[in-house]
Amino acid sequence: MLIVMRHGTPQEDIDRVVAIIAEMGYVARPMPGRQRTTVGLVGNDGRVDGSRLEALPGVQEIIHVTKPYKQVSREWKPESTIIRLPGGLSVGGDEVLVMAGPCSVESERQILDAARTVREAGAAVLRAGAFKPRSSPYSFQGLGRAGLRMLARAREETGLLIVTEAMDAEGLDQVLEVADIVQIGARNMQNYSLLKHAGRAGKPVLLKRGLSATIQELLLSAEYILAEGNPQVILCERGVRGFDTVTRNLFDLSAIPVVHGLSHLPIVADPSHGTGHRDMVTPMARAAVAAGADGLLVEVHPTPDRALSDGAQSLYPEQFERMMRETRLIAEAIGRRVAEPVGVRA
Amino acid sequence: MLIVMRHGTPQEDIDRVVAIIAEMGYVARPMPGRQRTTVGLVGNDGRVDGSRLEALPGVQEIIHVTKPYKQVSREWKPESTIIRLPGGLSVGGDEVLVMAGPCSVESERQILDAARTVREAGAAVLRAGAFKPRSSPYSFQGLGRAGLRMLARAREETGLLIVTEAMDAEGLDQVLEVADIVQIGARNMQNYSLLKHAGRAGKPVLLKRGLSATIQELLLSAEYILAEGNPQVILCERGVRGFDTVTRNLFDLSAIPVVHGLSHLPIVADPSHGTGHRDMVTPMARAAVAAGADGLLVEVHPTPDRALSDGAQSLYPEQFERMMRETRLIAEAIGRRVAEPVGVRA
Amino acid sequence: MLIVMRHGTPQEDIDRVVAIIAEMGYVARPMPGRQRTTVGLVGNDGRVDGSRLEALPGVQEIIHVTKPYKQVSREWKPESTIIRLPGGLSVGGDEVLVMAGPCSVESERQILDAARTVREAGAAVLRAGAFKPRSSPYSFQGLGRAGLRMLARAREETGLLIVTEAMDAEGLDQVLEVADIVQIGARNMQNYSLLKHAGRAGKPVLLKRGLSATIQELLLSAEYILAEGNPQVILCERGVRGFDTVTRNLFDLSAIPVVHGLSHLPIVADPSHGTGHRDMVTPMARAAVAAGADGLLVEVHPTPDRALSDGAQSLYPEQFERMMRETRLIAEAIGRRVAEPVGVRA
Amino acid sequence: MLIVMRHGTPQEDIDRVVAIIAEMGYVARPMPGRQRTTVGLVGNDGRVDGSRLEALPGVQEIIHVTKPYKQVSREWKPESTIIRLPGGLSVGGDEVLVMAGPCSVESERQILDAARTVREAGAAVLRAGAFKPRSSPYSFQGLGRAGLRMLARAREETGLLIVTEAMDAEGLDQVLEVADIVQIGARNMQNYSLLKHAGRAGKPVLLKRGLSATIQELLLSAEYILAEGNPQVILCERGVRGFDTVTRNLFDLSAIPVVHGLSHLPIVADPSHGTGHRDMVTPMARAAVAAGADGLLVEVHPTPDRALSDGAQSLYPEQFERMMRETRLIAEAIGRRVAEPVGVRA
Repeated sequence: MLIVMRHGTPQEDIDRVVAIIAEMGYVARPMPGRQRTTVGLVGNDGRVDGSRLEALPGVQEIIHVTKPYKQVSREWKPESTIIRLPGGLSVGGDEVLVMAGPCSVESERQILDAARTVREAGAAVLRAGAFKPRSSPYSFQGLGRAGLRMLARAREETGLLIVTEAMDAEGLDQVLEVADIVQIGARNMQNYSLLKHAGRAGKPVLLKRGLSATIQELLLSAEYILAEGNPQVILCERGVRGFDTVTRNLFDLSAIPVVHGLSHLPIVADPSHGTGHRDMVTPMARAAVAAGADGLLVEVHPTPDRALSDGAQSLYPEQFERMMRETRLIAEAIGRRVAEPVGVRA
Repeated sequence: MLIVMRHGTPQEDIDRVVAIIAEMGYVARPMPGRQRTTVGLVGNDGRVDGSRLEALPGVQEIIHVTKPYKQVSREWKPESTIIRLPGGLSVGGDEVLVMAGPCSVESERQILDAARTVREAGAAVLRAGAFKPRSSPYSFQGLGRAGLRMLARAREETGLLIVTEAMDAEGLDQVLEVADIVQIGARNMQNYSLLKHAGRAGKPVLLKRGLSATIQELLLSAEYILAEGNPQVILCERGVRGFDTVTRNLFDLSAIPVVHGLSHLPIVADPSHGTGHRDMVTPMARAAVAAGADGLLVEVHPTPDRALSDGAQSLYPEQFERMMRETRLIAEAIGRRVAEPVGVRA
Repeated sequence: MLIVMRHGTPQEDIDRVVAIIAEMGYVARPMPGRQRTTVGLVGNDGRVDGSRLEALPGVQEIIHVTKPYKQVSREWKPESTIIRLPGGLSVGGDEVLVMAGPCSVESERQILDAARTVREAGAAVLRAGAFKPRSSPYSFQGLGRAGLRMLARAREETGLLIVTEAMDAEGLDQVLEVADIVQIGARNMQNYSLLKHAGRAGKPVLLKRGLSATIQELLLSAEYILAEGNPQVILCERGVRGFDTVTRNLFDLSAIPVVHGLSHLPIVADPSHGTGHRDMVTPMARAAVAAGADGLLVEVHPTPDRALSDGAQSLYPEQFERMMRETRLIAEAIGRRVAEPVGVRA
Repeated sequence: MLIVMRHGTPQEDIDRVVAIIAEMGYVARPMPGRQRTTVGLVGNDGRVDGSRLEALPGVQEIIHVTKPYKQVSREWKPESTIIRLPGGLSVGGDEVLVMAGPCSVESERQILDAARTVREAGAAVLRAGAFKPRSSPYSFQGLGRAGLRMLARAREETGLLIVTEAMDAEGLDQVLEVADIVQIGARNMQNYSLLKHAGRAGKPVLLKRGLSATIQELLLSAEYILAEGNPQVILCERGVRGFDTVTRNLFDLSAIPVVHGLSHLPIVADPSHGTGHRDMVTPMARAAVAAGADGLLVEVHPTPDRALSDGAQSLYPEQFERMMRETRLIAEAIGRRVAEPVGVRA
């Protein structure tokens, strides 16, 4: 941590900063410059809260050199984390894991149709929401517990793993009974009560990036889960808020190499929310894999024009098949392969 | 709602859109244009979900004319909502309500000191967090229940009303025992479980705008609370995420006249989080009141350089006094007045 | 400047950084920390280009402590710059300078009407564009030289000073024949050829903040003008690009205290472009003055529904009168006064 | 165009809107809805300026259905534009055109080294700036005319085509003597004087997206060039301003499929400016090609740690070779190929 003093600060103000750093148990190293003095704080393990220093007279700004997260960082654990899933699947290694399905569970028939469709095209995990966070209280809010039971049935029937969202502690416990991966959605990325609960879940957690979260904030939210004892976190880029309304979000694929540089955790990409338009999902799915994504989360609906939510960004079954074909070629071009659904590989 | 068809769409695609609108129970009005046909959907009460239509062949985009919120809108209730608080105070009328205090409750002594300080300068409500949402799991997380007890003590001692944050359903129940106004923080603006719980609270709710929430999303989150039966919602502008790191957030004061145009709910402003720098709090507090804010939420700490959180943006007591003086003059210049603390007015 | 080395960087990489800093003519001060070493570069006068260092092996990031601008900074010149204008007017001192008028010069009659209207309500400067930068090549592009002649006529007739925009070097020379203040628009804030030309103009320059310019970039663009020898720069906040389409731009009033802290140059605010909606101009004009703006730039049109550009954000004459009345009260509340038009004061 | 009236607007206000639309020469079609009336304007050819209507009493907002650009749109010209370059090269067809080289021309030796390096790895076009737009007036501003002469020499020596930037009309004329493609940089995307000049250039123009330009604004700026008679425009995505400082810009790869949907013009991607970090250039170059980019613009420097500008984002020669190898594989995976430099193919 570096404390930058204002131009022309009296020596006593600099001395006070030095004294307070000592009082906090760290070493202060003043560094007089041509325009101003800066004071280095040495010994920071990432937990120093600079706001106390920021308040002192003469202090112009605090510059953080040490990252505030620990366990999620690649400096803490250099080798990439590979998360093992049932059926011999994994995420974070050579395989690219494709999770696909409708936005919401709407009926048993719909989810079984969707499951069969995505499995046939080669997806390994079924995605669909039973609890739906919707901007409007008047929009369809999901089938809840009944939806979870339908997902369990789809799992039985097809062998697909299940990823589905939890919105609060109570729902999380219900989701854990059914899901192989628990999703925490973008709107709840900084719902710390939920994160702590997920940290005690014992199952992998798919943590989506918040709508305007920096990568550092995403990693800090993951740190909440690891700090509670659960190291199985899969990060997910799903677009951030941008100024151009031509897409639903601004899909930030750079997040993939950035996260791979800073953290050992795997990161997947969601081109459906990332773009909001069916026509853009396939090119952006290809791009995500080319950028190094460890997996994809894609909305596919047997009949998108009948969908109760997110119809416009759901792929038609035949579009999804094409996406899978093209994605496989891209994965191979960079020395990876798309994971095959359990049972097919045998 | 307006459905814009692509240039050169065949008539049968237009007919299908018309048919599906009819099937949904609304009236379709096709409008052939020079470049393309648009189809108006008439009879929308704000609850039509356009995504089903967006998925149809030939549809280029859906344009929403009707606002998706209802009860929060000024069209639903033209007169401004005045929320009555204990001790004859109110928010949303002529008075400008000042809520001030430290970021966190740190000790009984600190909160009592802070309470006396802000009351003396003229604040009517004490703000301070017992439950603190922090980006890092290693930062101070608040005193929890013990902090709430200290707030109750400060209320007794000074007569100040209390506003404090709840982060989950369980915490909300605890906060309700002590607080006059329950705060839902920016990070939880779209925590729908919490919003629904707050909708059953029976006390006023201060709902802060999310870090990158549009005004429409803020109003929709308020709608969740009203839809559950609680009409006492105070909105709060606290800065949104911007691209310039010179301030902590981008304080969007335009939100004040925008909200006053679209909704009957009161809106207050938080220049402490809005700017993140003590030196900017007073000018921006003045600006907020000049823009028409119904109140202010301001961080004041007896000794900011000892604060456990947000020290850099907390005012020193003497700065707060000056802010109050200047704010009173601004309020008078636009025909309002700053509310006085209960007991003083008698 | 601080060079942050990666965790575990070998000593030879650190030594190379130290050697190159010495080669560049500065002093290097290595500072080993608990997680990583940082190397301070001492003696920076704001002109060191860090990108060369950023490229060295082992370097994680470069942190700039010294500001890259000089002459515009308050450290360079502590007292605020007061720019003297004809007729005894000034900007940057106690007076708040109101510049008002239509978006474009449309005809002699329109501009004379507008000039009389804004003068009567108390504006001191007439604003109107003869050269109009428009997003579309098919939109009205301004009357050019003929428009400048009409502005000269309005000046003669009313005694109002003139501010009008130049878009290129050739146009700037024409504008200089007529205008008292030359405007460089938001889209040209980083048109360095134009900035250099304005730096040799010998008249005050009103420099608008670019659509997504940081304050530092705005100050650097002003530095281009000062570096060429023209110290008369008036900065202007006019809204930046935001994610919410409810307003045309995100009006960043915090820029006012930020600029006043970092620079000695005056800064004015443009609530018309800042909001894009006539109904929001008056509250935001009040807010800008309350925040400390040294002036206002406001669009007023005799008949907005006949305007060839920006009709929706132009005030009706009676709205402008009300804005002036309210703005005067706000200015007085903070110990300033609105400048009166030349001739009236005599 | 759709004019949305406020809830409860009196009939006379609606009638006035209808009358004014008729006066403007278009057909008005009022459409009473459940919450409010909307009035459709029929016959819009993309040139109607709605601001006049926006100013009328009772009008709530104007919704644009028709796109404001014409000649750049795919509706105007359905087949993709293929721009022919000297030596049988082209952009916009099956080939992916790689343009590479240092940020700036620094010396004849440097540019010849760089040219040989990038040609050997397979680039077809040499990029390097002789005129450099720099945020600070104290940064290296380029070698100007002397730099252009060195580029001409590199062209002669290696057969590589040249792309280089012009910052004003005068510089554009000089650039045209040497370059095969003229670049207009991000900061000048809305420098309309320069765009018009480029519209009369007779050579292909590479138009970079502005720092916070929407796709529509990018297309409108291209329209300026086409409207002056030059149909040879290559668009370029180079990152937009985002809120996360971990990358230099937010690289918006979705722009590629979006532009391909809306326009017939080719679009290339610049992963160097898009990310600002050498380590991220290769994965994002792969991603851009996977997303469908028609070419790449990449910074490569023989010795990045000696570069006078942009050292941190310049690839080392061996990194560029690897990037080319991987990019070729990605191009093949989607049925395209990387263009080979002229002369090699024979």
